Amino acid sequence: MIEYRNLRVAVLGGGSVGSQVASLLLEHREELAARAGAGLELVGVAVRNPDAARDTDIPRELITTDADALILGADIVVELIGGIEPARTLILGALGSGADVITANKAVLASHGPELFEAAEQVGAQLYYEAAVGGAIPIIRPLRDSLAGDRVKRILGIVNGTTNYILDRMDTQGDSLEEALAEATRLGYAEADPTADIEGYDAAAKAAILASLAFHTTVPLDAVHREGITALTRDEVLSAREAGYVVKLLAVCERIDADGVEGVSARVHPALVPLSHPLAAVHGANNAVFVEAEAAGSLMFYGAGAGGVPTASAVLGDVVSAARRHVAGGPGVAESTHANLPILPISSATTRYHVILEVADEPGVLATIAQLFSEHDVSVEAVSQTVPDGQEGSRPTATLVIVTHEAAESALAATVTSLAASPVVSSVVSVLRVEG
Amino acid sequence: MIEYRNLRVAVLGGGSVGSQVASLLLEHREELAARAGAGLELVGVAVRNPDAARDTDIPRELITTDADALILGADIVVELIGGIEPARTLILGALGSGADVITANKAVLASHGPELFEAAEQVGAQLYYEAAVGGAIPIIRPLRDSLAGDRVKRILGIVNGTTNYILDRMDTQGDSLEEALAEATRLGYAEADPTADIEGYDAAAKAAILASLAFHTTVPLDAVHREGITALTRDEVLSAREAGYVVKLLAVCERIDADGVEGVSARVHPALVPLSHPLAAVHGANNAVFVEAEAAGSLMFYGAGAGGVPTASAVLGDVVSAARRHVAGGPGVAESTHANLPILPISSATTRYHVILEVADEPGVLATIAQLFSEHDVSVEAVSQTVPDGQEGSRPTATLVIVTHEAAESALAATVTSLAASPVVSSVVSVLRVEG
Repeated sequence: MIEYRNLRVAVLGGGSVGSQVASLLLEHREELAARAGAGLELVGVAVRNPDAARDTDIPRELITTDADALILGADIVVELIGGIEPARTLILGALGSGADVITANKAVLASHGPELFEAAEQVGAQLYYEAAVGGAIPIIRPLRDSLAGDRVKRILGIVNGTTNYILDRMDTQGDSLEEALAEATRLGYAEADPTADIEGYDAAAKAAILASLAFHTTVPLDAVHREGITALTRDEVLSAREAGYVVKLLAVCERIDADGVEGVSARVHPALVPLSHPLAAVHGANNAVFVEAEAAGSLMFYGAGAGGVPTASAVLGDVVSAARRHVAGGPGVAESTHANLPILPISSATTRYHVILEVADEPGVLATIAQLFSEHDVSVEAVSQTVPDGQEGSRPTATLVIVTHEAAESALAATVTSLAASPVVSSVVSVLRVEG
Repeated sequence: MIEYRNLRVAVLGGGSVGSQVASLLLEHREELAARAGAGLELVGVAVRNPDAARDTDIPRELITTDADALILGADIVVELIGGIEPARTLILGALGSGADVITANKAVLASHGPELFEAAEQVGAQLYYEAAVGGAIPIIRPLRDSLAGDRVKRILGIVNGTTNYILDRMDTQGDSLEEALAEATRLGYAEADPTADIEGYDAAAKAAILASLAFHTTVPLDAVHREGITALTRDEVLSAREAGYVVKLLAVCERIDADGVEGVSARVHPALVPLSHPLAAVHGANNAVFVEAEAAGSLMFYGAGAGGVPTASAVLGDVVSAARRHVAGGPGVAESTHANLPILPISSATTRYHVILEVADEPGVLATIAQLFSEHDVSVEAVSQTVPDGQEGSRPTATLVIVTHEAAESALAATVTSLAASPVVSSVVSVLRVEG
């Protein structure tokens, strides 16, 4: 039996994921060779600063600052730098030289995916990205392969661990957003600048990747509607809990029918999830992706969504896949965009709203409010009214909590605009979508 | 661009899965062709009785009773007959003729897996079996590919929907085993002869498949320790709930170290799972597989574990994978047994016990019991004692509930033997393992 030659693996990036990948490649060398059908030789780790402190020891002779030179001698290039540049140029360079590329970089995939996949296809190289969504959780392969004979209807994903940790603390500890964010920062779940997480940019990139894959349609990042969690209050989270919901930042990818046009909706926003839904039990910095498919029904994939070691597991799974294909040739992971569905704006989506209003505590107010919903063809599922004790001042107010049935997002938005303008509404306290 | 020729797909079995697969192949023909890179032509469905009632309409001209003839003209053979024979012979025949085979048949895989994989390897054909474990839930690909760069430490699987439905009813409705089984039968979750489910044979076959895959070691079916749920009482389930646990029938596959020997333990038995564990939230006939890996940490895969339509989704995913490989060649799903670890008996496993005893209500009894545990090197985590009200008779008794720390299964078993023989123990009411 002829042994296959060793495959040369280059790692770009010596951060927490990069150093773990390098260390596991060295430590598990024999096991990986047995599984891949070829030896995997770590030929170098390209870093910006060779003297930076690292999570694991990488032999000094493997460290280089010359990523371009490293790429040229590699069969498999693992890009773990993150961000758009220089990651994009390095990936294009690696693919151009015929190397397979493994990346955990959701930002570059969401913004330059088609360019990268096309570069790969032109030379017959492959681009793997299991680690780009959901950290260690296998979600790319299940969507691409296991569900290849099915039709995905909807994906609801908790794909950002930082915001899930924050929302979980607000829910279970009664923290304010600021308190929970401070704790997340202290524990290393949030970065010094948490914008990408709390404003939903990270989740939006993942939504674009998931929607593209699930619906066989290129979904560009700027077509993903994005709302972060920064406007959420402790009161909103706690009153959701009282009503039997938990607030999660969801990436929602749906195949929808808007006035007879089949299309794709991809959006990221906080949403109320019923406590009975499997996503409601996803605590801390964990991630989970809930998939509804026509034949398979409901599936959920759950696990650690980030962290150097878990993400390294997903990266190494891709390295073994790439190596197996080097040995045996065969089908890779070409982008599948055969469906090419239109991307519809969020106004075309249907959803449910949970609205909290402060209204005048006067006869006829409920009828006025109900009329406003009805005028916009929005059907109300539940209303509850509370009158605060011991009010002073000239005009007593009451709090109304309204949950709607499913309605067009545009109709719901128009309803809220009318409510805000109504003389009987003193304030629109909270508007959140309900999913799941 | 040259279009690839149509691939000829033969379906063996016209039961609930077979008829759904046939119908989806016809209905989703264009979509499947786009994803597979080749047309998928259903050339026939082999059945025993052409006139039997079916879940979906299969065109009469596609139905045949001659499975052998159907196989000869097929590129891809889908075996959905179940059981050992004639399934085994038909699979061997199909592989021998060079066809790729997709099967949902855990029984034939668990008992004849190595023979089938070898037959496939000899001719370069492939054997896919995503549907054999966990119905629609992608679990085979994640273990084989996504975790190929990681080391699986343990799998805890709820892999039998019938028993999960029964145990869930006993837990949530207070049903007896007989009542819950009758309800499962009425709803079609249990077969007329429920032995394979409730005695754990179905789960044991799946444990053998999962353990073989996860540990790169052939784990034969008869090496799987098996206990069913028939001895479980309503009282055991309810007292587990009171103590913060739920009873599940688990397939446990572990990499263990027994006296310095690294090996594999595979077993099926009822176990107490803490209510905080993600598996505790798996209700009804759903399945879930909880995987602990060295780098990835804890992952869970959840969904519908059975049913014609969900299982058809997994089968069609495999059909598309097989078709892509027909078009492009390349690495298939050869059996990976490179680790070839010894299979250890259940006595080598470490676990925790939850023991309920009826003991004499006399001074010194607790000390006697504690001494028995200690003699076998079993450390006790918690003891609670209840004395029933208004006892009559000459010798009052009390109930002791004891939860141990982790200990060798052999030590725990020996402890229980000593307890049963002790004069202060009137009866060993319940012995269940605790996992998770």
